[in-house]
Amino acid sequence: MSKTNPGNYFEDFTLGQVIEHATPRTITEGDRALYTALYPTRFAIPSSAEFAASVGLDPHPVEELIGFHVAFGKTVPDVSLNAVANLGYAECRFHRPVVPGDTLRTSSEVIGLKQNSNGKTGVVYVRSTATNQRGEVAIDWARWVMVHKRDQDAPAPETVVPELTDAVAAEDLVIPDGLDFTGYDFAAAGEPHRWDDYEVGEKIDHVDGVTLTDPEHMLATRLWQNTAKVHFNTEARPDGTRLVYGGHVISMARALSFNGLANAQLIAAINAGAHTAPALAGDTVYAWSEVLDKADVDAPGVGALRLRLVATKGRDESMMLRTEDGKYAEGVLLDLDYWALAPQA
Amino acid sequence: MSKTNPGNYFEDFTLGQVIEHATPRTITEGDRALYTALYPTRFAIPSSAEFAASVGLDPHPVEELIGFHVAFGKTVPDVSLNAVANLGYAECRFHRPVVPGDTLRTSSEVIGLKQNSNGKTGVVYVRSTATNQRGEVAIDWARWVMVHKRDQDAPAPETVVPELTDAVAAEDLVIPDGLDFTGYDFAAAGEPHRWDDYEVGEKIDHVDGVTLTDPEHMLATRLWQNTAKVHFNTEARPDGTRLVYGGHVISMARALSFNGLANAQLIAAINAGAHTAPALAGDTVYAWSEVLDKADVDAPGVGALRLRLVATKGRDESMMLRTEDGKYAEGVLLDLDYWALAPQA
Amino acid sequence: MSKTNPGNYFEDFTLGQVIEHATPRTITEGDRALYTALYPTRFAIPSSAEFAASVGLDPHPVEELIGFHVAFGKTVPDVSLNAVANLGYAECRFHRPVVPGDTLRTSSEVIGLKQNSNGKTGVVYVRSTATNQRGEVAIDWARWVMVHKRDQDAPAPETVVPELTDAVAAEDLVIPDGLDFTGYDFAAAGEPHRWDDYEVGEKIDHVDGVTLTDPEHMLATRLWQNTAKVHFNTEARPDGTRLVYGGHVISMARALSFNGLANAQLIAAINAGAHTAPALAGDTVYAWSEVLDKADVDAPGVGALRLRLVATKGRDESMMLRTEDGKYAEGVLLDLDYWALAPQA
Repeated sequence: MSKTNPGNYFEDFTLGQVIEHATPRTITEGDRALYTALYPTRFAIPSSAEFAASVGLDPHPVEELIGFHVAFGKTVPDVSLNAVANLGYAECRFHRPVVPGDTLRTSSEVIGLKQNSNGKTGVVYVRSTATNQRGEVAIDWARWVMVHKRDQDAPAPETVVPELTDAVAAEDLVIPDGLDFTGYDFAAAGEPHRWDDYEVGEKIDHVDGVTLTDPEHMLATRLWQNTAKVHFNTEARPDGTRLVYGGHVISMARALSFNGLANAQLIAAINAGAHTAPALAGDTVYAWSEVLDKADVDAPGVGALRLRLVATKGRDESMMLRTEDGKYAEGVLLDLDYWALAPQA
Repeated sequence: MSKTNPGNYFEDFTLGQVIEHATPRTITEGDRALYTALYPTRFAIPSSAEFAASVGLDPHPVEELIGFHVAFGKTVPDVSLNAVANLGYAECRFHRPVVPGDTLRTSSEVIGLKQNSNGKTGVVYVRSTATNQRGEVAIDWARWVMVHKRDQDAPAPETVVPELTDAVAAEDLVIPDGLDFTGYDFAAAGEPHRWDDYEVGEKIDHVDGVTLTDPEHMLATRLWQNTAKVHFNTEARPDGTRLVYGGHVISMARALSFNGLANAQLIAAINAGAHTAPALAGDTVYAWSEVLDKADVDAPGVGALRLRLVATKGRDESMMLRTEDGKYAEGVLLDLDYWALAPQA
Repeated sequence: MSKTNPGNYFEDFTLGQVIEHATPRTITEGDRALYTALYPTRFAIPSSAEFAASVGLDPHPVEELIGFHVAFGKTVPDVSLNAVANLGYAECRFHRPVVPGDTLRTSSEVIGLKQNSNGKTGVVYVRSTATNQRGEVAIDWARWVMVHKRDQDAPAPETVVPELTDAVAAEDLVIPDGLDFTGYDFAAAGEPHRWDDYEVGEKIDHVDGVTLTDPEHMLATRLWQNTAKVHFNTEARPDGTRLVYGGHVISMARALSFNGLANAQLIAAINAGAHTAPALAGDTVYAWSEVLDKADVDAPGVGALRLRLVATKGRDESMMLRTEDGKYAEGVLLDLDYWALAPQA
């Protein structure tokens, strides 16, 4: 019998089931350097240990998306190896900064199941939790994927669809212990704009673009130990292209957003994310943001900005998300809704 | 007179000669991160400091092949710059884990010489030893290469061909101090299969494939400070291709073997290796393994598996090593014979 | 109003103005590993913590050009985002080794201004200083760039052109505290040639070549947080090529110069640098050096070599810098004049 991982099929999941994902992964300064090499990030907190300490963060946190990609990558072999589609995620909260030396492991609980009417596939809802070496929660999130059935004649489970919020409520955001933006150094951070300067509804064209290459997205995706075949193997897709991991586009867009959102320093939550079109090597990725909401939070000098981050293939100075018929506009690759923490004044 | 390194020719080697190779190299967490980005490795020991400590390995070892590639790379400028062919290696043992902060240096002793009958080339046998900053042996191995003569009229040395074993005997394997697999966490490691579950003769198709690119193999090869021209310079080969460093294929295949051999955690020895065909960018590398032998070793819960690791260009589900005439089957890139350590039960 | 950085135009600069550049950046072991992966460097001091300590350098310095690229990259958004041309740099001195854990920040003072006669552009001279987390100077240098005017009718400032030296005088070189080459291990360093063996006027062909790729130069340029569009975006230049960052060519040539200058270990100063032609992916970069001067310095066993480092597209064994009409010879990419420190005898 084969010793290789066949992945789980729809009927392998049961409500309440808890899956411990392999393999735990220790975060290092090497991850920080590679992240800097892969994405044009210049956010002052992950870039500078001195800056981080000056706002109360010591030891020196890595970019939040490093933790997210690593934690998320762990779930792939068990949850989405046989996925037809990644349908969405929600309620992702960053509970504490991840720092070099932290070892992350991820487990998932099945919180919903719904067989599709065609009898061939079903939707699996999981809540995943990444914990560090002290057993503290680092990141958690909900996610739902459409998965093949192994046997179409297998009986359908009772349908349970979890209630998930559209967005993490501002009062549920976890603010890192000790975070204090009252002495924030705007010159060092790169832009003068503070939380006060952003208005709900405001859009920001981040101007810069980066043309994707295959070696770079493969390096990134492996770094997160995400081993989905389509990212690496030109024989895995009929047209011989390698699909760019969606997280690569998230990180690219987030880094590009520095130009206009340099002070939206820390990601506190991801409310929702849609990968609306495939990205491939040769595509030039641009980004724009929209301020969706603002909220006070309970930390000195800190405010929360709810932002829509949109990645596009080719620059769209009109910053159009959807066409009149409600579909995503051509060129939109990513529609990400998240909360960031910024200096208030 | 030129100050650049002309490399050594056959007549520059003498029996018993010891060559101190430049330059020592300190291993860091950056190497671990880059290795993870370059190869789809997920073995729990190098991935997680917590997992490593739980099996008795603290500080946190890096992948054994990092040490091997670095140590091997040192020998290239002195031993194989003028090589016609790398003929083989044998008796490679890993004496202790390499951890960040270790500085490796390599020296080689000439243990055999044999001029070829054409008078133009000869075979040089060396035993190379990599030591750490405390002078302890980290890795040693024997290797033989065919090297050009500078002067065809130079007299042939006495022929001495060392006796090298086909495989390191199980009782000669060095088990890392403190290694203890009795509390091994199979869920964290990613697969349930233990040493007991593998049978001699069993073959495992590792399923996944990775398409090679030039930037990636160049990054890897430079990381090991291996500067052989053919890997980097499109003007160095008539067809303008860059030859992929054989060690890149070893690491790729080893990482792919996680899928089916996740618990073959530590490489204890390399018995033999043949690079049977060149690998180039665009090739999609797959791997399969065969269990050649099993042995008890003197450490709690630890068993040794002798494995043949075969890398192929394109997937060969038939897992055929050689054709009926004894030649390597088409598509075979690498035939590596090694010992790994696995949890026994 | 746009929140993104429009960059500074000629009339935004005033004599004596001091600009604090964003964002500070902490150097890590990850940077060392990536540098090793990106360039074929084998210099013993940055490669080996043991070797570095043996010549008095502990903690373990990173390659000087890591500090230079990071410090320089900081100035791009403020100084050269609207540059027509980078005209030159001078008087760059390395005041102390940069080690992992150091956080560099850069500020620039405007030391000269000269509007061009066309009224459309002007030359801005700045002296930039990178300091570490203790406020100590790590690197400083002068640089001049031609920048667009925003408004051609804006009045011209008084012309001030600073006096800059052709080369840092040997007595002004800063020697790292504690540097002592009296016990220098030439075998470990890789070559027997010492300061005494080099003669003024001597040229060295470094033999080896590396073919450039887009992913590699983008990884490098991002690592230094240099975000000039032309390096990353195929839509930023009419021909769809990505221009290779000049610093990538400097580092490549410097690394190639190991073969013949392995003991020119530490860069103490950069006297001048000209990027004489664009470099693109597919170009094969070679290097040669010329000894311009030699000087004693005040440290045990240490001598200074003033070197011209020339990078070429394609190998030029004749090592011709300029044609008879005084122009740079075809294929010359870089003409860099620097001081290195070598063991004297």
